[in-house]
Amino acid sequence: MLNDLILCGLGAMGQRIARLALARGYRIRAVVDCDPAKAGKPLHELLDTPVPERPVIISSDLDAALDGEKATVLHATGSFLADVAPLLRTFLARGHDVISIAEEMVYPEAADAELAAELGELARKNGSRLLGTGVNPGFAMDVLLLALTVPCGQVSHVHARRCNDLSDFGATVLDSQGVGLTPSAFEAAIASGEVVGHVGFRQSIGLMAAHLGWSIDRIEEHKSPIVSRVARSTPYVSVAPGEVAGCHHEAVAYCGEREVIRLEHPQQIRPELENIETTDVARITGDQTIQMCISPEVTGGAGTAACAVNAIAYLAKARAGLVHLNELPLTSPRSTYFPSV
Amino acid sequence: MLNDLILCGLGAMGQRIARLALARGYRIRAVVDCDPAKAGKPLHELLDTPVPERPVIISSDLDAALDGEKATVLHATGSFLADVAPLLRTFLARGHDVISIAEEMVYPEAADAELAAELGELARKNGSRLLGTGVNPGFAMDVLLLALTVPCGQVSHVHARRCNDLSDFGATVLDSQGVGLTPSAFEAAIASGEVVGHVGFRQSIGLMAAHLGWSIDRIEEHKSPIVSRVARSTPYVSVAPGEVAGCHHEAVAYCGEREVIRLEHPQQIRPELENIETTDVARITGDQTIQMCISPEVTGGAGTAACAVNAIAYLAKARAGLVHLNELPLTSPRSTYFPSV
Repeated sequence: MLNDLILCGLGAMGQRIARLALARGYRIRAVVDCDPAKAGKPLHELLDTPVPERPVIISSDLDAALDGEKATVLHATGSFLADVAPLLRTFLARGHDVISIAEEMVYPEAADAELAAELGELARKNGSRLLGTGVNPGFAMDVLLLALTVPCGQVSHVHARRCNDLSDFGATVLDSQGVGLTPSAFEAAIASGEVVGHVGFRQSIGLMAAHLGWSIDRIEEHKSPIVSRVARSTPYVSVAPGEVAGCHHEAVAYCGEREVIRLEHPQQIRPELENIETTDVARITGDQTIQMCISPEVTGGAGTAACAVNAIAYLAKARAGLVHLNELPLTSPRSTYFPSV
Repeated sequence: MLNDLILCGLGAMGQRIARLALARGYRIRAVVDCDPAKAGKPLHELLDTPVPERPVIISSDLDAALDGEKATVLHATGSFLADVAPLLRTFLARGHDVISIAEEMVYPEAADAELAAELGELARKNGSRLLGTGVNPGFAMDVLLLALTVPCGQVSHVHARRCNDLSDFGATVLDSQGVGLTPSAFEAAIASGEVVGHVGFRQSIGLMAAHLGWSIDRIEEHKSPIVSRVARSTPYVSVAPGEVAGCHHEAVAYCGEREVIRLEHPQQIRPELENIETTDVARITGDQTIQMCISPEVTGGAGTAACAVNAIAYLAKARAGLVHLNELPLTSPRSTYFPSV
């Protein structure tokens, strides 16, 4: 069954996806994770969900997990195309559809055009479909902005600013944003590549440019520390005044010398302690100006799991090959509403 | 050529569509309007645009205008399905694709399921595609809201409120909203059907319910006068304090006894005179709550023309038959950007 699911990757995001897929009535056929501490456990124990009729045991045997007829693989093991490509190849070679939340898979051409083409061709040959999705990239700074262009006859500039809260995240994410560093250590960590900021600007820009028919000549990125004026702490980190509470990362895309897309993404812990509102703000400039604010911002974690699960039914109707979000209808949750919500 | 256009209806909206289609490089092959004052005139004179290489003469001869190979008809003659169906049949019988801005065409099943099915079947038989679009219905109170559901795992309620300004509109629209009446005359005009309020709530609700997989059991509508506390006037109407400046129209959809969609649409002249901001506001309630505000509101007139012209390229790739906006990718303007904007 195409709507049978195989889950690959049971980190925080993979678990969110598993919970939502079960709540939405999908059958999870197999679950694979490379963590030896998880292998052999029933999925429902890890998720702390009710015991199902046929419990699924978490496996570390990828080959066995991929056995059987065509299914949809939900993939959540990493962010970068180069890292996840070997796994994606394996899924596609077995004829499965694949939905990945790897950030770079939202528009893999922006990371490695040759590798993206190779994966697309492999999918096509095997009658499979390959899609990347998530809240950012995948929604807040691309698909949502494209939605706002629908009533525009001409668009000359797209601007978005996503200000979010990192307080729920653990060490991996906080380190990647430089949280807790001194400003000078932050600059050094930018230079060394330890602080990466947001992964996905080039995907958001690539997706929007492809949809709008724009040709982007140059992208400039800039990262700067968000230096806290107050003490901020979470269960994972404490930041003193004068230390770094997060990373302000921005990307600007040019067509010739003209700026056409500007994306700003300040990410930090405890923004409310400096009265900073978390928001998704956008401005489309063209034959009309559309200014939008979503407050608080669209939730990243739960939202990305929803984007992935919602896409299952839409991807099943797409052509084989590498599929981009802008080629699909809006991937809204299709289900009877939930009276308990 | 499929991207050759035939325009049917050259009122205010038809003229906007014509201007934008020309600016976007489409070839307008024929233009037909029933107004004898327009027939025989070159289109560029009516539009006050530069003289083209091959001027198009406005015709009142529908049959002649529809002659030739398959094209896309942009239709702008009326709001109601029953009124426009005979014209749509004629377009489809000639094998043309059709994009209509008739409000009820955004989800014609909500107006007359049998007639919608008949038009869909006629389109399918002739290899044509039939689409209804516009800003409202078609975007502000349906497609935009569906876009906001993409990062939601579950949705239990959709709310939108569109507060717009009628000051640019002429007598037809103002009369349909009861502008300038006394409150008691307004109530009488509601009862007699002279004041219709917004046309399209049932289409917006039908489109969203179809996309979300919801089954709507009942829709309740309510219209009330927006009584002005101050004097308000436009070139077309003057309203004294105590008189009606517009119509607050709302529609609420139920699934069983549970409210699942609430759409509110206060329309009035000169809202700024009572410090009323014009906005599109939405709230999606589900496993996350998404609150959005667009300010000022998405422009209705220019926006509807853009929705129609933008849809041409997307509809050309759709299956034959009656097509709904939620089945297409986002119909963003696809073009190189305009350096002059």
